[in-house]
Amino acid sequence: MITRMSSLFLRTLREDPADAEVPSHRLLVRAGYVRRVAPGGFSWLPLGLKVLRNIERVVREEMDAMGGQEIQFPALLPREPYEATGRWTEYGDNIFRLKDRKNADYLLGPTHEELFTLTVKGEYTSYKDYPVVLYQIQTKYRDEARPRAGILRGREFLMKDSYSFDLSDDGLADSYQKHRDAYIKIFDRLGLKYVIVSATSGAMGGSASEEFLAEAETGEDTFVRSTESGYAANVEAVVTPVPAAQPVDGKPAAQVHHTPGTPTIETLVTFLNKADLGREFTAADTLKNVLLKTRAPGADKWELLAVGLPGDREVDMKRIEAALEPREVAILEEADFAAHSFLVKGYIGPKALQDNGVTYLVDPRVVTGTAWVTGADKADHHVVDLVCGRDFTPDGTIEAAEVREGDASPDGKGTLVAARGIEIGHIFQLGRKYADAFSLDALGADSKPIRITMGSYGIGVSRLVAAIAEQSYDDHGLIWPRGIGPADVHVVIAGKTDEIRAGGEQVAADLDAAGLTVLLDDRTAMPGVKFADADLIGVPTIVVVGRGLANGVVEVKDRRSGERTEVAVGDVVAHLTELVRG
Amino acid sequence: MITRMSSLFLRTLREDPADAEVPSHRLLVRAGYVRRVAPGGFSWLPLGLKVLRNIERVVREEMDAMGGQEIQFPALLPREPYEATGRWTEYGDNIFRLKDRKNADYLLGPTHEELFTLTVKGEYTSYKDYPVVLYQIQTKYRDEARPRAGILRGREFLMKDSYSFDLSDDGLADSYQKHRDAYIKIFDRLGLKYVIVSATSGAMGGSASEEFLAEAETGEDTFVRSTESGYAANVEAVVTPVPAAQPVDGKPAAQVHHTPGTPTIETLVTFLNKADLGREFTAADTLKNVLLKTRAPGADKWELLAVGLPGDREVDMKRIEAALEPREVAILEEADFAAHSFLVKGYIGPKALQDNGVTYLVDPRVVTGTAWVTGADKADHHVVDLVCGRDFTPDGTIEAAEVREGDASPDGKGTLVAARGIEIGHIFQLGRKYADAFSLDALGADSKPIRITMGSYGIGVSRLVAAIAEQSYDDHGLIWPRGIGPADVHVVIAGKTDEIRAGGEQVAADLDAAGLTVLLDDRTAMPGVKFADADLIGVPTIVVVGRGLANGVVEVKDRRSGERTEVAVGDVVAHLTELVRG
Repeated sequence: MITRMSSLFLRTLREDPADAEVPSHRLLVRAGYVRRVAPGGFSWLPLGLKVLRNIERVVREEMDAMGGQEIQFPALLPREPYEATGRWTEYGDNIFRLKDRKNADYLLGPTHEELFTLTVKGEYTSYKDYPVVLYQIQTKYRDEARPRAGILRGREFLMKDSYSFDLSDDGLADSYQKHRDAYIKIFDRLGLKYVIVSATSGAMGGSASEEFLAEAETGEDTFVRSTESGYAANVEAVVTPVPAAQPVDGKPAAQVHHTPGTPTIETLVTFLNKADLGREFTAADTLKNVLLKTRAPGADKWELLAVGLPGDREVDMKRIEAALEPREVAILEEADFAAHSFLVKGYIGPKALQDNGVTYLVDPRVVTGTAWVTGADKADHHVVDLVCGRDFTPDGTIEAAEVREGDASPDGKGTLVAARGIEIGHIFQLGRKYADAFSLDALGADSKPIRITMGSYGIGVSRLVAAIAEQSYDDHGLIWPRGIGPADVHVVIAGKTDEIRAGGEQVAADLDAAGLTVLLDDRTAMPGVKFADADLIGVPTIVVVGRGLANGVVEVKDRRSGERTEVAVGDVVAHLTELVRG
Repeated sequence: MITRMSSLFLRTLREDPADAEVPSHRLLVRAGYVRRVAPGGFSWLPLGLKVLRNIERVVREEMDAMGGQEIQFPALLPREPYEATGRWTEYGDNIFRLKDRKNADYLLGPTHEELFTLTVKGEYTSYKDYPVVLYQIQTKYRDEARPRAGILRGREFLMKDSYSFDLSDDGLADSYQKHRDAYIKIFDRLGLKYVIVSATSGAMGGSASEEFLAEAETGEDTFVRSTESGYAANVEAVVTPVPAAQPVDGKPAAQVHHTPGTPTIETLVTFLNKADLGREFTAADTLKNVLLKTRAPGADKWELLAVGLPGDREVDMKRIEAALEPREVAILEEADFAAHSFLVKGYIGPKALQDNGVTYLVDPRVVTGTAWVTGADKADHHVVDLVCGRDFTPDGTIEAAEVREGDASPDGKGTLVAARGIEIGHIFQLGRKYADAFSLDALGADSKPIRITMGSYGIGVSRLVAAIAEQSYDDHGLIWPRGIGPADVHVVIAGKTDEIRAGGEQVAADLDAAGLTVLLDDRTAMPGVKFADADLIGVPTIVVVGRGLANGVVEVKDRRSGERTEVAVGDVVAHLTELVRG
């Protein structure tokens, strides 16, 4: 197919759009791929739609290849199924709700777990029907509080969402792995640099949830990776390496010290180092006890929870929340302290907590035999050499401490560094939550019902256009991977003579006949304008038909490297076919 | 591609769905193509989605071929552009409106005239940029009062909408004609029987608006067609053939008669035929004067309008509304009669109307020289032989009378019969309404602005699935045209032996290798069940691999004719390729 720029609905812009925050947004607007029409709402102009469809095709091919079956639901959905799972309310302000002319409640689907579950229940009855993987590539809606970064975080976007339905946990693990493999193929075909990060700490099962993050400085998601291995994880999922336990025997006895005016770690360490205790203390020698309260979903009553961690680390509430999910968690307020007189703020120690029945979880570094400076449950007093496993015994451990650059990688190789990425895929072992909500059972061989277990898997299809752009551009414009850009070859007619014009037309026609897609710049503009537009648009190979034609050659430019090669006109088709088809 | 029924997400139903009103709905549900998930909201199961995509592909190919450029807008749109054209309000209950978390108003797009106009304005400035045709294939929303007939009239549906932008009326006529030609190609490729009807009476320009109606008894749209020509039109668009004017000279003088108790046409005719007037009267000899009121859009004040038509015809308010558009029109109420004492109900004649300045329009049959019995503007009195052009002169004509079967066809060939159809396409010369609303101008060669003129063109893509089904089914199920069904060939393995199974697999693999799409019934079900499902699903060619295989033959069945042919296994690919590719 030949797309002629003389009639293409395209106007490139010389200036960056005022509202563009990230390179992909800036370049996709300047190169005429997308236009903003509403907050978080974009139109796809011809070049942008071609790229979107190319990506959609790759996703569809790999989903079909892994055994997925494509179906399609409406985006406008009735309230009832979402009410049944509680999500009508849980989504809060994040979904669009509306009423029809009969005042019935509807929403614009953010994801379709409910509908897929109900549909499988409607069609399938026997264990022989399973497993099944269904997917759709569909417009989704979320009322983002702050739509930003162009199509990276819009309120209307194209998503591939799939769902697996299995009879057993092993079946689910298999469906999950097949999706994981398919996602790797998809993102590899799209030429993306990405990492697969554990999205949860393992409390829900080792590989129950992973995210695919395209590496990008402009990404909203933070993660950590090892300096020396392929390890990468969401901060919530980092598992602290546990030090070896130490012998308790021979440790000095715990001693309570009067430490006036030391309610903070800093004041405490300064005080101890001025007192003559025969050794140097750092914040890492202290055990900080943070008081929280938690409650089960739907419960009214909060329960106290104390978390002990080395004094040189801050608590990371996102890690605590992930560790305690689905329980709700909050920092203790002044009123809570007042209600529990055994909590001496600034001087809380393990003893009062455990004497008063408060659950006490510690950082994994607090192992048997480690000695700590911590509160003595009395104002202006701390205890030194309180030994874990001798003087106190925690109720368990919790991943509550911040992860820092330089921390040892959990896989034992190298240390962690922080990085940012764009979430492009998410795979998740849902389990039986939705099957339970709608009683989705298969009739077993023994005529007994088997509750189905599900996985849910998403790819942000429209977001991928921006994610690829974020990874692949230079000062002059976009640079698309092969097979993804709006054409295979960009032919520039660089000259106004009849010979050059006819030569350019012929090259385009020959490439088209060979099955390549061609963007043909047949405009009357100056060559400099055409070259700049070709660089901005970012088709990976540019063929310049100009003065060299008199000598029987055209120039083939690699957009990424900038390398230029003279190719004889007679060899252009073979040369380009080789480049494009590899 | 081979789709295996052993794992296909499909359950056919033996029973008709309770809510199915029309054959397409009944069969598409029974054959597992669609499922209802909300009022007017359907999910597309794998077979249905394949058909939808096939139709979408045909539409896209022909739109590209006629020079259209595909883009895509969001479905969730801000209020402002629709407020600017008045459509935010005009749509009334027919669109879905909603608010975002910031309480801003949005709608779900029913059509996108506003957005296309603004987008062209945003990109194009010069006359050299025009003409341009843009289109999208996109999910649309309308809050139908009575969603019905399955996917024929849903509230969420897939539509191709395109818009042409031209510098002149001639350009618009050309763009309109190109769309008309493309639509003919599309509907022909889809194997549809359809008519193209004028949608308006010509008041807005002869070919300003035409509808493509797929003929179907279950269609919601009524139209008339000629018994002897290709003439077809919406009832609103039928132009009454005008009889030749007659000489006024020599006509008897008008005489007023005392006609007590004759406020209706029937009583009047009976009275006249009992009175000894020397001839027989019928209702067609009387001139009935109907009083209406009309007002301009946005106006407060109503104006009186009298319509005179032969007494044997009822007024058709839809035709009157179409003729007077965009003016509003209503029947006169008792209070209005009371306010105008010159209106003697049941006895109104042209004289009082014209003496009192009431606009008086007549049916086109009321030509100069025709003589009528009509009201004498006095209770219980009528005038006989009131001659048009002598005794009264109407202010003009109006298409107000009902169209009846048996009326002469406007093209002079044959008479009209009533028929029903499904609207599958609509082409419309919009003119400058939207360009005016948003000041869409091109800068001319003389540096003066040229106001752009637009056309809008729609195809109901998802509705086409049902429209085709309505035209193509039998007692056993659906019958898809070639290239539209969910596969090219349906291969049924009819037997449980290893040989038959292997033979069926081989036939499917060979057809797949030849580039045909195959639906392979590899289930363990009984042959009878498989044959019934094959008929229900409606793939146009069914290959049965069964006992004949021992003799080296398979059976090829034409789904439409039911004709069965034995074909040697070695010839199957050649035979099928010939059938499918034609």
